[in-house]
Amino acid sequence: MHDRPPNTFHLSDTDRIDRLRLIRSDNVGPRTFGSLLNHFGNARTALERLPDLTRRGGAARSGRICSEAEAQAEIAAANKIGVTLVAPGEASYPPRLATLDDAPPLLGVRGAPDVLLRPMIAIVGSRNASGAGLKFAGQLARDLGEAGFVVISGLARGIDQAAHRATIASGTVAVLAGGHDRIYPAEHEDLLAALLEHGGAISEMPLGHVPRARDFPRRNRLISGASLGVVVVEAAHRSGSLITARMAAEQGREVFAVPGSPLDPRAAGTNDLIKQGATLTTEASDVINAVAPIMERPIVLGASEPVGEPFDFDAGANERACIVNLLGPSPISLDDLIRMSGASPATVRAVLLELELAGRLERHGGGLVSLI
Amino acid sequence: MHDRPPNTFHLSDTDRIDRLRLIRSDNVGPRTFGSLLNHFGNARTALERLPDLTRRGGAARSGRICSEAEAQAEIAAANKIGVTLVAPGEASYPPRLATLDDAPPLLGVRGAPDVLLRPMIAIVGSRNASGAGLKFAGQLARDLGEAGFVVISGLARGIDQAAHRATIASGTVAVLAGGHDRIYPAEHEDLLAALLEHGGAISEMPLGHVPRARDFPRRNRLISGASLGVVVVEAAHRSGSLITARMAAEQGREVFAVPGSPLDPRAAGTNDLIKQGATLTTEASDVINAVAPIMERPIVLGASEPVGEPFDFDAGANERACIVNLLGPSPISLDDLIRMSGASPATVRAVLLELELAGRLERHGGGLVSLI
Repeated sequence: MHDRPPNTFHLSDTDRIDRLRLIRSDNVGPRTFGSLLNHFGNARTALERLPDLTRRGGAARSGRICSEAEAQAEIAAANKIGVTLVAPGEASYPPRLATLDDAPPLLGVRGAPDVLLRPMIAIVGSRNASGAGLKFAGQLARDLGEAGFVVISGLARGIDQAAHRATIASGTVAVLAGGHDRIYPAEHEDLLAALLEHGGAISEMPLGHVPRARDFPRRNRLISGASLGVVVVEAAHRSGSLITARMAAEQGREVFAVPGSPLDPRAAGTNDLIKQGATLTTEASDVINAVAPIMERPIVLGASEPVGEPFDFDAGANERACIVNLLGPSPISLDDLIRMSGASPATVRAVLLELELAGRLERHGGGLVSLI
Repeated sequence: MHDRPPNTFHLSDTDRIDRLRLIRSDNVGPRTFGSLLNHFGNARTALERLPDLTRRGGAARSGRICSEAEAQAEIAAANKIGVTLVAPGEASYPPRLATLDDAPPLLGVRGAPDVLLRPMIAIVGSRNASGAGLKFAGQLARDLGEAGFVVISGLARGIDQAAHRATIASGTVAVLAGGHDRIYPAEHEDLLAALLEHGGAISEMPLGHVPRARDFPRRNRLISGASLGVVVVEAAHRSGSLITARMAAEQGREVFAVPGSPLDPRAAGTNDLIKQGATLTTEASDVINAVAPIMERPIVLGASEPVGEPFDFDAGANERACIVNLLGPSPISLDDLIRMSGASPATVRAVLLELELAGRLERHGGGLVSLI
């Protein structure tokens, strides 16, 4: 069972190095990467323009740009431990993950060939799960594995661990919040080693990156994004698994939740999800029946060079100053900025990108931005 | 908080006695009662025609007709223990119950005046409930009581008991499967006595009637029918509470279900109900928010003399024989009977009613009938 027929391309070595340099440079995230690649046509040109754009954005000091030597060293070190850095659209990049607006431009992948191309279901939940929750997660994972699905999760204690452990033989994927050589929690290194034989591990972080608190929500978007749907097994109010569920919904993925007693705080989050429209799940068939029609539809990747909104980097000093003056610590919408500045949308977007590269802009939900 | 503005009529003593005689006669259920009252205009005429109709239906022996003395004795005995027999549309008949096609033509009511006119929510569930289930049922009932709702249930052990007990002060209604003097289970006589001060009890059965197994599903339609909605707290697969939920859905009442762990067999039925569209319920506001818009709509009672499908009791012997010949132990639809016999719908309905009064006809769901 493959998630889609292979329809891929292969980066040249130099392009891969250029792309890695770009995404590893200061203030360049997946979306900014996409904007730059789109505007300049390739990573090399974007890299060449980066110092100028950053300076125009008003950076106090020039942002660090990843050198060619560093990028080559990262690729060599990664290959040494069996990690390959792949771009969306390349053969071993998870096809559904590639459809995200903020898909990692380069993803470190490791493990059994092809496991990342099979249809995946995410199983997530509390780290301090109940015995019943752990038992159910294992049972559900096993049943999904037997039905041909790869179970994807976050290698955490509790539900994640139970889901991975039950699918070591059928294939399971761990999504890491840190680098491939910085496994968290460290006690799960054995579990990771065991699951790599038939499964895989993915990370968008460089080797050596120790995961911090803010890396986990960021990582969670990869768990949901790579999967057909996310099953939440036991989650208290305001728990991390609910972030994964929210991201899944925003990404158009199915959300499944396992019910529990109203008196059990570990079920408060999952019961709420069901109230909000998640599919109540008590057995694997609840998941399989819901994703079956989705699997029949082809996965539509963005073009390898995504066509986004245009940028105009030729703003005059006055125009740039006017836009910057309109910005402050309170979030303002792009539409308001365009209206109030009288500048063209392409100019406003370009100025915002420069500010972002200079580390001076914060993007909020709903197209809102503020100055840091 | 009243469920509707009073808009009632009052039966004459003789009409009440005639109606009681009719519904207490052999083979006359609520629907047949309605058909007879509709066709003959009043219970007295229907009673006079009953022997003839029963004979034409081919009864082996004439069905027993309740005598005037028996009816008078039942009313006297009922009054003696504080039970009044009321008809749909009379002042103390639960207004939502009166809207059912098969509303009891006379309902024995007992307890605090007006409690039956307040908006009711049914809480039902397992007799062998878990401690958590009992606790939750009590908590939910108390919260609904504080919000002004009357909690209605079946006086059974387990969830019913917990729901009644928590609402003795705010008002709760017990729906009995037997007569008012045949409380089941007998150990709940004290609970019933306690709840009558602010609450009530209702039964469609005559005094002295000991409830049999088949009386409970029949009783359950009154629990759902009198309420705005039914909350099912803990129910295994194929449990009686699920029958109440199905009846509620058929009656157009809201269905609420309390979730539980997939590993808990006592939650299997409620989880299934939610999968089928019941509202997942973890707190009283889930119920209150769902019924609020329904409470704003007026309750539409049928006309006091409901206008139903007409009957033609003037079928010839040949026509009657033809219809009877088409019937057998396998259920057949009314439409097929009309088509195959070539008789008018009114004639086919009349012949079926005669057969029913003769105790020879069984009605199934979906308008299907068979010969007994």
